[in-house]
Amino acid sequence: MAKELKQLTSREESYSQWYNDLVVKAGLAEQSAVRGCMVIKPYGYAIWEKMQAALDKMFKDTGHVNAYFPLFIPKSFFAREADHVDGFAKECAVVTHYRMKSDPEQGVVVDPDARLEEELIVRPTSETIIWNTYKNWIQSYRDLPILCNQWANVVRWEMRTRLFLRTAEFLWQEGHTAHETSEEAQEEAMKMIGVYKEFAQQWMCMPVVVGHKSPNERFAGALDTLTIEALMQDGKALQSGTSHFLGQNFAKAFDVQFANREGKLEYVWATSWGVSTRLMGALIMAHSDNNGLVLPPKLAPIQVVLVPIFKGEEQLAQLVEKFDIIADKLRAKGISVKIDDRDNMRPGFKFSEWELKGVPVRMAMGGRDLEAGTIEVARRDTLTKESVSIDGIDTYVENLLNEIQENIYTKALNFREEMTTEVNSYDEFKKVLEEKGGFISAHWDGSTEVEEQVKAETKATIRCIPLDAKEEEGVCIFSGKPSKRRVLFAKSY
Amino acid sequence: MAKELKQLTSREESYSQWYNDLVVKAGLAEQSAVRGCMVIKPYGYAIWEKMQAALDKMFKDTGHVNAYFPLFIPKSFFAREADHVDGFAKECAVVTHYRMKSDPEQGVVVDPDARLEEELIVRPTSETIIWNTYKNWIQSYRDLPILCNQWANVVRWEMRTRLFLRTAEFLWQEGHTAHETSEEAQEEAMKMIGVYKEFAQQWMCMPVVVGHKSPNERFAGALDTLTIEALMQDGKALQSGTSHFLGQNFAKAFDVQFANREGKLEYVWATSWGVSTRLMGALIMAHSDNNGLVLPPKLAPIQVVLVPIFKGEEQLAQLVEKFDIIADKLRAKGISVKIDDRDNMRPGFKFSEWELKGVPVRMAMGGRDLEAGTIEVARRDTLTKESVSIDGIDTYVENLLNEIQENIYTKALNFREEMTTEVNSYDEFKKVLEEKGGFISAHWDGSTEVEEQVKAETKATIRCIPLDAKEEEGVCIFSGKPSKRRVLFAKSY
Repeated sequence: MAKELKQLTSREESYSQWYNDLVVKAGLAEQSAVRGCMVIKPYGYAIWEKMQAALDKMFKDTGHVNAYFPLFIPKSFFAREADHVDGFAKECAVVTHYRMKSDPEQGVVVDPDARLEEELIVRPTSETIIWNTYKNWIQSYRDLPILCNQWANVVRWEMRTRLFLRTAEFLWQEGHTAHETSEEAQEEAMKMIGVYKEFAQQWMCMPVVVGHKSPNERFAGALDTLTIEALMQDGKALQSGTSHFLGQNFAKAFDVQFANREGKLEYVWATSWGVSTRLMGALIMAHSDNNGLVLPPKLAPIQVVLVPIFKGEEQLAQLVEKFDIIADKLRAKGISVKIDDRDNMRPGFKFSEWELKGVPVRMAMGGRDLEAGTIEVARRDTLTKESVSIDGIDTYVENLLNEIQENIYTKALNFREEMTTEVNSYDEFKKVLEEKGGFISAHWDGSTEVEEQVKAETKATIRCIPLDAKEEEGVCIFSGKPSKRRVLFAKSY
Repeated sequence: MAKELKQLTSREESYSQWYNDLVVKAGLAEQSAVRGCMVIKPYGYAIWEKMQAALDKMFKDTGHVNAYFPLFIPKSFFAREADHVDGFAKECAVVTHYRMKSDPEQGVVVDPDARLEEELIVRPTSETIIWNTYKNWIQSYRDLPILCNQWANVVRWEMRTRLFLRTAEFLWQEGHTAHETSEEAQEEAMKMIGVYKEFAQQWMCMPVVVGHKSPNERFAGALDTLTIEALMQDGKALQSGTSHFLGQNFAKAFDVQFANREGKLEYVWATSWGVSTRLMGALIMAHSDNNGLVLPPKLAPIQVVLVPIFKGEEQLAQLVEKFDIIADKLRAKGISVKIDDRDNMRPGFKFSEWELKGVPVRMAMGGRDLEAGTIEVARRDTLTKESVSIDGIDTYVENLLNEIQENIYTKALNFREEMTTEVNSYDEFKKVLEEKGGFISAHWDGSTEVEEQVKAETKATIRCIPLDAKEEEGVCIFSGKPSKRRVLFAKSY
């Protein structure tokens, strides 16, 4: 009873339909019965777990600890930081009651007698509840720095949702740190955007540009927002992680002061930083093709799949016996292996399924291979195959996985370089945006008006002011006013 | 600027105040600004992470995978399984709106125009949303079993809360499995309560009794609930984990049928099972003393602390140098070590602090030890010390940690055995309950009336019908009716 082969819409036909098909058909996630909320399926969750493990280790290696703060935030907490409430008020899930009751006509109804005195907001982010807590943890400079992270779910009531990219509920981590000085807090914000960059590049094979957000695009309540921006294969940018220098805004809102080294009271300096399941969307769109997912080996739940090409049970048993030996050798090197011994479907179907699921290396063996001591090794990234001796296959595969990891990164980096264009006029800007897409490097006069007008006319936004932007005299492509450096524009997710 | 020594209320003075003091002063958790919701502080969370890691591995080793389902459940889903809604309706946080707005007088208010058509319940448990999802995953017996687990936060609006033991929001894992046959589902439920038992005993050093809940105490919607029951040091029982055989109840409520091996449609069989941050409460109450936490080495975030006894900076530097060598050796054996080189507090204060935090082994070294090549090793479980040569200290400590792990378990097991009493009359029952507490093994006629009346009169409940209860003719201590086996009664948390 072979299942139907799962056909994807091609990228050329419809990029957004291709993405959606891929997420669903590769078993990563699906829509749930609750508007805008997704179910993360086991295969998708296994990738997320690998991301979490790698990030968590990087956070701990940089001195951070995990903690857990409440899901609910009293409504009044939001109102304390003016920009923050403006940023989040329009997309909050609000808990108003704490009980249901039976109703003879409607079955179960909300009990009107169980109304909360103060409504609770399901956290869209946790600065307010955390800074209200830090108030009790901090008296003196000796209590600083506080370097906490939490892994949690958050809710932002988005009107238009897409699996992983924009969902009402999503999973993320949020770091919240407290410091003695402005400099130390700014260093922390910079350090953590560096951690995100390293993770994106080393684990996800995804080159990113690190830069400052324009004032208009800052996090609600931040003095500075650092971002990593990645380029997807359709030429649109995706903000993949942010790190904020919050100044003393939240310390002031929650009255968190400390006795400094001179014994004087001072407000505490803050950062926050986060990445979310949105990274799953980035990972998918950065590398995958019309055959399905392309997963970097370091994040693949299954790195190698072994498929027997057999006639009859006896040969299947012989091949599986051989596979067990190979699998043991690979596992001894820390490689995750699956032996696909299903006897109710053809090899071609299995090949397609594992391609769809992005398994980096597929190895197939038939009767002739058994005799010759060879195995066919297929790479997911290049879709090439070769016949290899099974002597030393473990070392061969280990090297191959490293090579694939590097190749996927290099390919994405080359793509981004091809898709980054310098322009010097607004006409050129619009032409590149229309015909080519990608990142557009252009002079900007630093004003919010220009930023908003360009967005209104072209849908392109300033993704960031890159950290490595060199000083260069120029004029704003829109206003003609002087500019000191280029910024990166793009259409984005 | 040494901090004040953190005094605990003694257990004898007030067990419940001792518990609360300990949780707060050892830095495990604290109340938040949101009624009934706690903040899990970094040290407490580090213990929880170790529990999670051990359990997660056990789940995966028994064939389970992780996934993630929505936080919100449409109100109508609850109404589909009658017992389930009765069980949870009275303690639900209900989301009714999805937006706030500015109000000139009150600052920020809930936007009345943003009322949800159907209210959403913050999950108190996820059977309904998960079975609504499984409906799309299951067509034939080939899609079974489904063996999913999720790590998540849940909300139950408890009126009287206690840190870790009973909180409005808590963290847990919930396994939800789907099976072809009743037998297979029942085996799964039994297998998972076995996993919980092994975890409680091997990791938490906490002996547990495994048994069936009485019908009255079953999970809302289950045909059978298995439980692990632990005994706390005040003689009260604590339900520490449950595993439910759900029959076809949820499959019927959500119309989840599959084509069986004969090609006929049949409803799917289900289990669910969970443990929560309540285990933190169990861990604390099972072993700790008036000096603070007593942590089993396998769950201790810091297993060994090294404290220098020094005069002046030079000696401190010498000791720390020696400690670095010892710490490296211990870390090479996978032991987590902290060197407490703070120079602003006395050793006695440090000793008390690490006792409070339950670090299993404390090692101290002074000038004389340096010369003699010795170190003082103190055990947290027995509060004994001895002077040990630093040659081979790594092996010594490794063995000591194992010995401590065993000793804490044995002590708890002996306590439970002493505190388990067989009684044969209701007078005896009441006397033991009053004067001694603990588990009381008695005959019961199997009726809910007796169970409820005993509870009303004595506050004791049937904790479980132990799996290993031998058949034994007897009469119910309350009704005098015949009974075939003894059950365990106790007062409980």
